[in-house]
Amino acid sequence: MAVWLEQASDDFEARFSAFLTTKREVSEDVNAVVRTIIDDVRARGDAALAEYSHRFDGLDFTVTPMRVTEAEIDAAFAEVSPELIDALHLAAERIERHHARQMPKDDIYEDAIGVGLGSRWTAIDAVGLYVPGGTASYPSSVLMNAVPARVAGVPRVVMVVPASGGAINPTVLAAAKIAGVTEIYRIGGAQAVAALAYGTQTIEPVAKIVGPGNAYVAAAKRHVFGTVGIDMIAGPSEVLVIADKDNDPDWIAADLLAQAEHDRGAQSILITDSPDFAKAVEAAVERQLKTLSRSETASASWQDFGALVIVPNLTAAVPLANRIAAEHLELAVADPDALMAGIRNAGAIFIGRHTPEVIGDYVGGSNHVLPTARSARFSSGLSVLDFVKRTSILRLGPQQLRQLAPAAIALAKSEGLDAHARSVAIRLNLEE
Amino acid sequence: MAVWLEQASDDFEARFSAFLTTKREVSEDVNAVVRTIIDDVRARGDAALAEYSHRFDGLDFTVTPMRVTEAEIDAAFAEVSPELIDALHLAAERIERHHARQMPKDDIYEDAIGVGLGSRWTAIDAVGLYVPGGTASYPSSVLMNAVPARVAGVPRVVMVVPASGGAINPTVLAAAKIAGVTEIYRIGGAQAVAALAYGTQTIEPVAKIVGPGNAYVAAAKRHVFGTVGIDMIAGPSEVLVIADKDNDPDWIAADLLAQAEHDRGAQSILITDSPDFAKAVEAAVERQLKTLSRSETASASWQDFGALVIVPNLTAAVPLANRIAAEHLELAVADPDALMAGIRNAGAIFIGRHTPEVIGDYVGGSNHVLPTARSARFSSGLSVLDFVKRTSILRLGPQQLRQLAPAAIALAKSEGLDAHARSVAIRLNLEE
Repeated sequence: MAVWLEQASDDFEARFSAFLTTKREVSEDVNAVVRTIIDDVRARGDAALAEYSHRFDGLDFTVTPMRVTEAEIDAAFAEVSPELIDALHLAAERIERHHARQMPKDDIYEDAIGVGLGSRWTAIDAVGLYVPGGTASYPSSVLMNAVPARVAGVPRVVMVVPASGGAINPTVLAAAKIAGVTEIYRIGGAQAVAALAYGTQTIEPVAKIVGPGNAYVAAAKRHVFGTVGIDMIAGPSEVLVIADKDNDPDWIAADLLAQAEHDRGAQSILITDSPDFAKAVEAAVERQLKTLSRSETASASWQDFGALVIVPNLTAAVPLANRIAAEHLELAVADPDALMAGIRNAGAIFIGRHTPEVIGDYVGGSNHVLPTARSARFSSGLSVLDFVKRTSILRLGPQQLRQLAPAAIALAKSEGLDAHARSVAIRLNLEE
Repeated sequence: MAVWLEQASDDFEARFSAFLTTKREVSEDVNAVVRTIIDDVRARGDAALAEYSHRFDGLDFTVTPMRVTEAEIDAAFAEVSPELIDALHLAAERIERHHARQMPKDDIYEDAIGVGLGSRWTAIDAVGLYVPGGTASYPSSVLMNAVPARVAGVPRVVMVVPASGGAINPTVLAAAKIAGVTEIYRIGGAQAVAALAYGTQTIEPVAKIVGPGNAYVAAAKRHVFGTVGIDMIAGPSEVLVIADKDNDPDWIAADLLAQAEHDRGAQSILITDSPDFAKAVEAAVERQLKTLSRSETASASWQDFGALVIVPNLTAAVPLANRIAAEHLELAVADPDALMAGIRNAGAIFIGRHTPEVIGDYVGGSNHVLPTARSARFSSGLSVLDFVKRTSILRLGPQQLRQLAPAAIALAKSEGLDAHARSVAIRLNLEE
């Protein structure tokens, strides 16, 4: 049973605050192991990768080489059903078209006194994309991470994926081909992150690593951060549905369960102004749970972290939504735009009764890598901006330097930085 | 003596690679101490802050309250020379005008099949700004961090600054007033970071923490990352000057020393095509070192990490500059635009002989918080983008849902996510 919270009750604030800060992850302390693996890959390169891949994935690189060949990728592509290939193409095209609009433009200009200023954007030289093995090996995630990198103009997109016994999900390889991944290696875990960050004899290092992974991968990404850039460390997924009583309870229940089936730590929350509707949704959830292949996961998530929140009116849902700062927010109400205006904190908003969050997972065009665990208060989903960087530009002539010099020198001196003051003064024969 | 590297020599690649990976920081392991302080502030709030501030800063909050009053700020403002106030105003106005151009625009549109898509930007609700105490308490850094937050529309900008014995640099308070900081507390160290992240009885929590600090502050920021956002963890500063022989060696020497005086770990590099010019710069550095107030720091930085790199021609400097990926890059050459085109990795570029990097530290208008330690390969300087976040928007009607449903369902099924497939299918009475 999910938790039931009524805003009208006296203890609501206390219970809601406690609910907000509930941890949904057990953070394993794997730092010591990860540090050893990273140091080893740095020191021994390919030899270390071969050993770890043998130990963890049962692979022998002298039989199945580390790098996945073009021929293997083509064979995998041919193995995937035409219907699924079409779906991947549709998704990739829609993601590409939406993300192309995110490409920032250079802004080079001269100000009123003739100082040249500007921002110039360039693509990152090389990006690594971690793809988990096993059941969490999602072709859609390959598209969501690799397509924006290609749109940004990243010339090298290097994918790593652990391949237990050598096999890689063919749909993942097909997605990589469609998304324009340029190199694929069958390695995983902390050793793959280390190889991407520091390079080995076979793998040139990259400048940034993105993509989801288990506790070892997350710890390894934190560890190499600074040497390379990393994307966010994503937590378990969550959805907040704000719904009025005029929804079909079964539709909303399906949306809550789509989130819950991801992970035992996932979270599904309904806010509604109708207790009766909330009860109907709850009943529908119980009913639908019976026919899901991942019902054990979904049921655990719903019982441990699910919530039904009753507000006196839908307007009251907005400040609660801003505090929850959900990764995904559905507005299944008659007038979603009225609520939209007040929402400040949300990774993505799905508007109206015919926009289930799942469309955003696959074919909406927007990115499904979104800020979890309330981090939408300060961060954004993955975008083209994650694959470019900005260089500031400044250009003065003697006249502009003369005009700005006195203020620069005054500030430098007030900070006790003589050489700063001199660097300006010496060009103008000014006294320092 | 700085290191001398000639590209024409046989061992150049080996020596340059080693030079690139030289660590310039001793990372103190302060994690255990920091963790204790953070846990204590979380548990006891103001009482813990009072104790740590008494222990580390000799402060008694019953005598000197934690929050700095308006009257104190006004008194500090009156204490600063009119010349310096003017310089702060000029700097703040130029920073504001440049950063206003960085404000991203919402992009809400309908695609060819009628799907509503979009990106909506909102300011972060509250930001904390850490300002170090002592000699590293720079008014210019207050402007560089707080003005972009104000431009972004952040309603609460909370400054913390350790105040040994109660005193805060009046120019720092004046800069805070000019930059629009909304609250100031005289606290510092890991305890201040914890207070900003988790809140106390007196201090409401913020959603993101920015600003420089010592090893304890950096460790505390890493520790609270996730609960709040943080900016980059900046390392020691660096400058790369690419200069031809037609520069005054004294100007270039002054620029190299302006960087070196910051910190013993700072780095100044000259790349030139003229060994004679390099020798002249080296002599000028030695000469100028004698008259600097911070000559000990500057001399240590130059001896330990300075470099003079001789290339056969200036074009050869470009790939080296991209590998160095300097925080600051000066192009003091006859035709800087010819080199500019090839530069991919640099925090900021200062073009021509009359644009010393120092102008960018204070009054250029661009931000002086820039990526250090080669991180310009994957990250950018501080900007308005660091104080806003993007929410994705998706809006479908029944017709659009019908059009995209088959692909979404096919992908969901291929990933083994039944509830995902159902969430789409149930709205269209499709078979799952």
